Amino acid sequence: MSLPTLLAVDWGTSSLRGALLNTTGAVLDMREFPRGILTVLPGEFENVFNTCFSDWMQTPGLLCLMSGMAGSRQGWQEAPYCACPAGFAELGQHAVWLQAKRIALVPGLSCLNAGPLHIPDVMRGEEVQIFGALHLAQRDSATLVLPGTHSKWVQVEHGRVTHFKTYMTGEVYALLSQHSLLSKTLDVTGAFDRATFLQGIDQSQQSGSVLHHLFAVRTLGLFNRMPASAMTSYLSGLLMGEELRTQIHAVQNGQVILVGNENLTMRYALALSHLNIDSQCLGAQATWAGLFALAATLTEIP
Amino acid sequence: MSLPTLLAVDWGTSSLRGALLNTTGAVLDMREFPRGILTVLPGEFENVFNTCFSDWMQTPGLLCLMSGMAGSRQGWQEAPYCACPAGFAELGQHAVWLQAKRIALVPGLSCLNAGPLHIPDVMRGEEVQIFGALHLAQRDSATLVLPGTHSKWVQVEHGRVTHFKTYMTGEVYALLSQHSLLSKTLDVTGAFDRATFLQGIDQSQQSGSVLHHLFAVRTLGLFNRMPASAMTSYLSGLLMGEELRTQIHAVQNGQVILVGNENLTMRYALALSHLNIDSQCLGAQATWAGLFALAATLTEIP
Repeated sequence: MSLPTLLAVDWGTSSLRGALLNTTGAVLDMREFPRGILTVLPGEFENVFNTCFSDWMQTPGLLCLMSGMAGSRQGWQEAPYCACPAGFAELGQHAVWLQAKRIALVPGLSCLNAGPLHIPDVMRGEEVQIFGALHLAQRDSATLVLPGTHSKWVQVEHGRVTHFKTYMTGEVYALLSQHSLLSKTLDVTGAFDRATFLQGIDQSQQSGSVLHHLFAVRTLGLFNRMPASAMTSYLSGLLMGEELRTQIHAVQNGQVILVGNENLTMRYALALSHLNIDSQCLGAQATWAGLFALAATLTEIP
Repeated sequence: MSLPTLLAVDWGTSSLRGALLNTTGAVLDMREFPRGILTVLPGEFENVFNTCFSDWMQTPGLLCLMSGMAGSRQGWQEAPYCACPAGFAELGQHAVWLQAKRIALVPGLSCLNAGPLHIPDVMRGEEVQIFGALHLAQRDSATLVLPGTHSKWVQVEHGRVTHFKTYMTGEVYALLSQHSLLSKTLDVTGAFDRATFLQGIDQSQQSGSVLHHLFAVRTLGLFNRMPASAMTSYLSGLLMGEELRTQIHAVQNGQVILVGNENLTMRYALALSHLNIDSQCLGAQATWAGLFALAATLTEIP
């Protein structure tokens, strides 16, 4: 049973990754290309896909399931957002089929916030990681966090995403550490400093605004109260802590499932543990597991 | 009584401004140079000053009082921060004298925040605007806001600054509108949109984090819920609103004195009025009034 049956593709903003899976979901082979959708001209998506994967696509009966920005308005073809609450059934129903039903684009998810403006929130690509992570963790209800440029805090109940919120944490961290006044006092080559990171977490739980707390990165340096090499850890703690301040009340069963690269999920796990919340970390395997599980439901659809 | 008696100088990061005042504090003449301290090499401050003001300094008995970054560690000579609570007396006592007591550098202010880390906060230049504004408003206790790259919220009681907090609002606004993903959906040439600005103010008063609220600038555009030309007003409202959310409880007597350029103070006045708080706006005259009032106390010092 090691014949390839699914080509799972994650076509994001900055990279294109594909994995060949067998009928048990095991990864037989994997490829990664620096061909994120930002590098692809309109009308060229099929050519780029063929260049990268046409040999694999020659396998008879092989299905290709694709998540990420390939289904965005700037991608191969738009797969409009699927409104929450949504689970596998809704994702499958809204998949967009290409190439005589050999390729399916997985739609992203949208939800509306509770406030008076009913502001929408969106994700694209993370939905597959969420369902993959739930499958790996053998759970059907959970709070998940997908850290990154735009962190997602996600509530899943009975196998359906009910609500989520995006935080621009990673992007704000990058802007501040590269372009702001603070960048002059930060030594970005400094190693991760656990104690200082947790000081940032603690400080962000205090009343007041993160726009104020950030200025401490300058003043603690000015008064020689913190070495420049520890400042990035403090800044990281302040910003992650701001997410936690507004989200820890919503964590289901005192446990969070973290999905993402180890460097980030390790920090969230540390911060959550400091605030007495358990966590479980999962990495890239969540994407392949999610696409595999989704493919299984798709082939059942008449 | 129109003889020049004081050269008031505001030497900041990006510009050097000077005003010649008579014995009643009226401005006789004013000059501005693109010679902020970032353009001046160490050891060259006296030369630059002489180039710009030596003709005025030939007036017999003329005193020069200088505020701003000229007194920072990277300036002409360091005038260490004066700890709060501090008023005119403390500023005068900690002034640093140059050129046979013809020039005095006004120190900045520092204070310690209440949290467990006792994080310091600092200002340099704003202290003179604060005392000038109080003089112009004929008040000795007030809440003041000095908007800008780094906004200051200041409490003054009986003529002394008791506490203040810095918010990196202006800098974060600039980073987001110039370098972030949001910059792609913003039309920065759009005129100020009052209604959308106030929607941003309202949204930021809701529970949740500004790091999340910011993402709406992308999603409202994605779903055609807000024109790109109004987005900068919404972003501006979200960030100013975050300051207000954490500071309006501390406003003394339901009124704020706003000091700064009209474009910014007008927006704060609008947002404050929307939240039922009165305000009074003052501009650059606060700097000259502050240095003049301080000079009067200095010459009384033995």
